[in-house]
Amino acid sequence: MKSSTVTSSDIISSDKVEGTNVYNPAGDKLGSVDDLMIDKLSGQIRYAVLEFGGFLGLGTDRYPLPWNMLKYDTSRDGYVVPLDKAKLEQAPRYDESELPEYTPEYGKRVNNYYGMDW
Amino acid sequence: MKSSTVTSSDIISSDKVEGTNVYNPAGDKLGSVDDLMIDKLSGQIRYAVLEFGGFLGLGTDRYPLPWNMLKYDTSRDGYVVPLDKAKLEQAPRYDESELPEYTPEYGKRVNNYYGMDW
Repeated sequence: MKSSTVTSSDIISSDKVEGTNVYNPAGDKLGSVDDLMIDKLSGQIRYAVLEFGGFLGLGTDRYPLPWNMLKYDTSRDGYVVPLDKAKLEQAPRYDESELPEYTPEYGKRVNNYYGMDW
Repeated sequence: MKSSTVTSSDIISSDKVEGTNVYNPAGDKLGSVDDLMIDKLSGQIRYAVLEFGGFLGLGTDRYPLPWNMLKYDTSRDGYVVPLDKAKLEQAPRYDESELPEYTPEYGKRVNNYYGMDW
């Protein structure tokens, strides 16, 4: 239970972000944050890697989502993403054992899928 | 062994940053990255929280370091920080069980100690 994800400050621990639940706007739990992908030079988080399972029946696939898509909802103690099941079913994903190289091409593919700038 | 910390792209996984060794410029291993502290709104990493032990005999204390102080050294497969033992002995630290609130005041104290802008 990651009930202490957010402190009263604006700084949070990556250990606590990882494991935080992710919901769709309707309030359905989609999964949880498994990992964060970071720009090595700037230290900027580019992607939250979501583990979706159960609800979608997709096992343990990992879905990289542009960080800006995640909004924290204090009432749910989790992140909300503006995605429905249909959108996720076609989304870029990978098996947990097969972390892809996050090349610019891969990043563009992910961002384009979600209509986000690269 | 975190030998795959850096991919050939510029994007790295937080899971791999955590656990990466940290060295001083002389090549002594100081410890390893235990956690990352992230600005909630911008997604920018502000601090790498270092676990120093053994070499300094300080047990499992945690030392927040401004992210910009860490430079990745591919030849060492780890980060290098421009710090000596004397500087670390007086540095802001906390016990692993006592994560402080990263308020602006705390952040300023840490940054000021290392001569970094807040």
